[in-house]
Amino acid sequence: MTTTQTQPQVQQWTNLAQQLRVDSIRCTTAAGSGHPTSSMSAADLMSVLMISYLRYDFENPKHPNNDHLIFSKGHACPLLYSMYKAAGAIDDAELMTLRKFGSRLEGHPTPVLPWVDVATGSLGQGLPIGAGVAMAGKYLDKLPYRVWVVLGDSEMAEGSIWEACDKAGFYKLGNLIGILDCNRLGQRGQTELGWNTAAYAARARAFGWRAFEIDGHNYDEINQAYSEALKEHDSPALIIAKTKKGKGVSFLEDKEGWHGKPVPKDKEDQALQELHKPARSMNFPVQKPEDLQPASLPPAKAVELPRYELKSSEATRKAYGDALKALGEANARVVAMDGEVSNSTFAQEFAKAFPERFFEQYIAEQQLVATAIGMQVRHYIPFASTFAAFFARAYDFIRMGAISRANIRLCGSHAGVSIGEDGPSQMALEDLAMMRAVYGSTVLYPSDANQAAQLVEEMAKHDGIVYMRTTREKTSVIYGPDEKFMVGGSKVVKQSPQDKATVVAAGITLHETLQAYEQLKGENILIRVIDAYSVKPIDEETLLAAAVEAGNKVITVEDHWPEGGLGDAVTEAFTQRDGPMPQIVKLAVQNMPGSGTPAELLEEAGISAHHIVLAVKALV
Amino acid sequence: MTTTQTQPQVQQWTNLAQQLRVDSIRCTTAAGSGHPTSSMSAADLMSVLMISYLRYDFENPKHPNNDHLIFSKGHACPLLYSMYKAAGAIDDAELMTLRKFGSRLEGHPTPVLPWVDVATGSLGQGLPIGAGVAMAGKYLDKLPYRVWVVLGDSEMAEGSIWEACDKAGFYKLGNLIGILDCNRLGQRGQTELGWNTAAYAARARAFGWRAFEIDGHNYDEINQAYSEALKEHDSPALIIAKTKKGKGVSFLEDKEGWHGKPVPKDKEDQALQELHKPARSMNFPVQKPEDLQPASLPPAKAVELPRYELKSSEATRKAYGDALKALGEANARVVAMDGEVSNSTFAQEFAKAFPERFFEQYIAEQQLVATAIGMQVRHYIPFASTFAAFFARAYDFIRMGAISRANIRLCGSHAGVSIGEDGPSQMALEDLAMMRAVYGSTVLYPSDANQAAQLVEEMAKHDGIVYMRTTREKTSVIYGPDEKFMVGGSKVVKQSPQDKATVVAAGITLHETLQAYEQLKGENILIRVIDAYSVKPIDEETLLAAAVEAGNKVITVEDHWPEGGLGDAVTEAFTQRDGPMPQIVKLAVQNMPGSGTPAELLEEAGISAHHIVLAVKALV
Repeated sequence: MTTTQTQPQVQQWTNLAQQLRVDSIRCTTAAGSGHPTSSMSAADLMSVLMISYLRYDFENPKHPNNDHLIFSKGHACPLLYSMYKAAGAIDDAELMTLRKFGSRLEGHPTPVLPWVDVATGSLGQGLPIGAGVAMAGKYLDKLPYRVWVVLGDSEMAEGSIWEACDKAGFYKLGNLIGILDCNRLGQRGQTELGWNTAAYAARARAFGWRAFEIDGHNYDEINQAYSEALKEHDSPALIIAKTKKGKGVSFLEDKEGWHGKPVPKDKEDQALQELHKPARSMNFPVQKPEDLQPASLPPAKAVELPRYELKSSEATRKAYGDALKALGEANARVVAMDGEVSNSTFAQEFAKAFPERFFEQYIAEQQLVATAIGMQVRHYIPFASTFAAFFARAYDFIRMGAISRANIRLCGSHAGVSIGEDGPSQMALEDLAMMRAVYGSTVLYPSDANQAAQLVEEMAKHDGIVYMRTTREKTSVIYGPDEKFMVGGSKVVKQSPQDKATVVAAGITLHETLQAYEQLKGENILIRVIDAYSVKPIDEETLLAAAVEAGNKVITVEDHWPEGGLGDAVTEAFTQRDGPMPQIVKLAVQNMPGSGTPAELLEEAGISAHHIVLAVKALV
Repeated sequence: MTTTQTQPQVQQWTNLAQQLRVDSIRCTTAAGSGHPTSSMSAADLMSVLMISYLRYDFENPKHPNNDHLIFSKGHACPLLYSMYKAAGAIDDAELMTLRKFGSRLEGHPTPVLPWVDVATGSLGQGLPIGAGVAMAGKYLDKLPYRVWVVLGDSEMAEGSIWEACDKAGFYKLGNLIGILDCNRLGQRGQTELGWNTAAYAARARAFGWRAFEIDGHNYDEINQAYSEALKEHDSPALIIAKTKKGKGVSFLEDKEGWHGKPVPKDKEDQALQELHKPARSMNFPVQKPEDLQPASLPPAKAVELPRYELKSSEATRKAYGDALKALGEANARVVAMDGEVSNSTFAQEFAKAFPERFFEQYIAEQQLVATAIGMQVRHYIPFASTFAAFFARAYDFIRMGAISRANIRLCGSHAGVSIGEDGPSQMALEDLAMMRAVYGSTVLYPSDANQAAQLVEEMAKHDGIVYMRTTREKTSVIYGPDEKFMVGGSKVVKQSPQDKATVVAAGITLHETLQAYEQLKGENILIRVIDAYSVKPIDEETLLAAAVEAGNKVITVEDHWPEGGLGDAVTEAFTQRDGPMPQIVKLAVQNMPGSGTPAELLEEAGISAHHIVLAVKALV
């Protein structure tokens, strides 16, 4: 800690901090809900940041050199929105629309606002995503922007925070600065660690961070902490600021019972008086960023997908890796990350070819998804992979990713009982349900290698949360390398005018269905076979036509629990419309599997060729 | 570190360790898959533990004083199963059934084996669950058993590990001992921290643990570390053992490329020779536990549920808290835990009444669920609560809980757009899909306070993963306190012989439906109204009857995304059977909500009374 600041500088910081407090109270009182006290504790920290350190062009939120400011404690958005007002980005009238229907100023920040990178509000997500942005800044953009993440103390109990601390240390993210607003009080009383700032500091240091313990209401200490934080470039910094919730108003300051409560209207005047509310609020100009350009990238070119020979044998997970590598060759914005299983997901094909664009996340699936979300903030095209089952670890990040309007591609390998001997802990049997129930998601489940490769290319073109499920086992290549597949499509693999029923399958079960087809054909029972590789959106038109043409009887077969997967997606196609529903029979995994060979487990689960034959015969 | 051990003792440890290695190789080679090298690294650690520290009656796995041994690195189960054989619990013939169809010895441990407390295999779960068991041991059972958790080094990157370290430190779990098998090599090369045992030690200490760095192949160091670990009772201990993967066999030891690979048959003899495989294997008796009884509990008595007056107004989340308190009064085995939001979920009603049975988990939802799973290992009846949206954070733990055959009750509050101003980050809109797609789960969504209270009592009686979704807003009490509700049931709230369609709702949407009913009745359109409070299992019989009696037209209304929720559950009731399907229209949340009042957001989402009226009119 070095020199003391000049009096005018301190006065400016004070003025802005008090204005931020005033506005945080005003907008929440007007809304009748919200978090003024959690905003007030961090007002001094944000005032110094905004006036003296932040580099941001509010008129150009897409400026490549803008710093990133992420409120991991999203509930403190009254403070964030008050900063936007102080910067002149929004006016007072808009500030006062906080939490009202139709307002951009939602109860927690979302990218509906152009200055917000990602939605927060599920605690413990801002830092992991900020680490992803910082990785992009340091290793891809190679630009000097900084990533500032404002943290609450309660959220330091989230494991995802420590996944982020671990990765930020490992990747030496000196461009990442955490600002921990340690105001002691959580939603229902004191937090786990209270004002034990030393404990936070010890933890951060153990994960490779520099840590600064300061009084979060002392401008000299705040200023010097920021200054120190920026001095090194090879380690992230955590500023642990001891603060008081509701700071500046006597009846709020460090008092219990005020979490998430606005100041009542009849006490608002008193609060504003204590904060010396001026006659009118001021604008505080923010320093513009430098005018540097990101490292230039070669223009994107046509993708030369891998080609697999018809009737050869290959796993769709291998095709994923091969195609991802091809995509990487064609487009330098494609990046990949994996959860220490790249030799299983085959993300290693990309990693070997483009080590500078591959980010190993080790076994930390929340950070895996957060890194992908962070990188798409910087307009990269991220593909994140792990075992399909382990994306369950990151479901909250995926859910929030949809609220962030994030464009990320996820690939889950080793789905279903067909993985065999490893047993149920490794078998994704709920991933389709989980991914379908994400707003605006796309869910793909290819059945052969050429199809998988093409769909990887499609993934890059689609916005939102795009998920591909791949299969562990090698399966027969049933489509030529020039056949076309698209999101929302399907493939009628077998059909005739004599079809008695339709069997809809995808992935591993399509191959079982094709075996069943041959057996049934030998008994003069013809069925239509549909490869529903696009589980969401599902190809309604083809399904409806098939039902009408093939006896109005549909069987779905999936290597998944009965709830929320392919069967429900197919059924969905028949609801929401006039006209009778076909009779639908769902074959899915009904009992908890154990270990065994893939064939044994498919048979036991009732989704083998044998069971499909039985189901068709029972139905027709 | 104190005295050196006698030669016979060291010889015994050596003999067992080599036998464990030999058996780990034999069973995986026979299986043709599995993890011998990850087993061999920890064989010395387990040998000393088993011979000199573990207290366990293998003939009586339910003995209340048994230590708990949890392999958080579940892939090392060949070692665990070899220990069971050495203890005489299984014979060699059974050991050789590893990973075979029908064997109890699955590819990762599950409680199909009576000595396994919980399923592992999704990394980073054993320690959090072990912490839950240890909380039960220290604060509920008050018995001196110890919880030993064997950890892999790769899984130390999982945030859930640090949630567990945090809680174990906070709750001073001196009965919890982590054994970190730091063998340096992960699935695809070196782990993030390699052999940097000092880094692990610093992290553990920063979270309130004692940490011991040892050579995991040096018996004196292992022995002394266990001895030291047991000396204090107010802090957990982590033994960080530097080990070599594949230890003891020249071509495996510390070599890359052997993760998850068995020794090929043609190299098995060489490997076993290097390990000095004896002519026949030995049994090694394990010390029996002390013969103490857990603190005696009063016998369970009848539950006196809270009663809410008909036509009064109450939130189902409040009824949850009131009923949980009533349950706690009746049954001393009922325990509760919450993620620092107990004043929102109303778990605080229980917490205030029974502070000694309430375990604050702060904002750490993975640990929240893990603690519940740990406590049911000790036969408590845990109820864990947080915002419904945030259970997405723990989905992998819930999924694995089903594989663990765990009996846990989860309550998620603040579901759907009807929470209002807080915005989408706080709105569970995928929880029904997520919870339905869990094997053997029960999903409840009560519509009024008396019903919620009764269903809380039902939850305690049901095995498996039992989930209740509660509503933030107060709603009208529409059922008398003596009406009966059961899992799998439903309530026909309105019916007549003239019903033109059936509307199926639950929770908040039932109240919208009742408004729609009155409006439609005023226009002489009668509808049947069903309260499907048991979303899984759904009341098929009542739904089928309603469809037949009311025009074969069904509308479902839910405060949830269209995928995987109530609408799909209702549709499911009509598949899997002969006979035509009714026409089904699903009303659900189709677009990303923002902030607003509950009424504004229900209307915007298309699930308000107004939209139900429109949908009925369009259909009939």
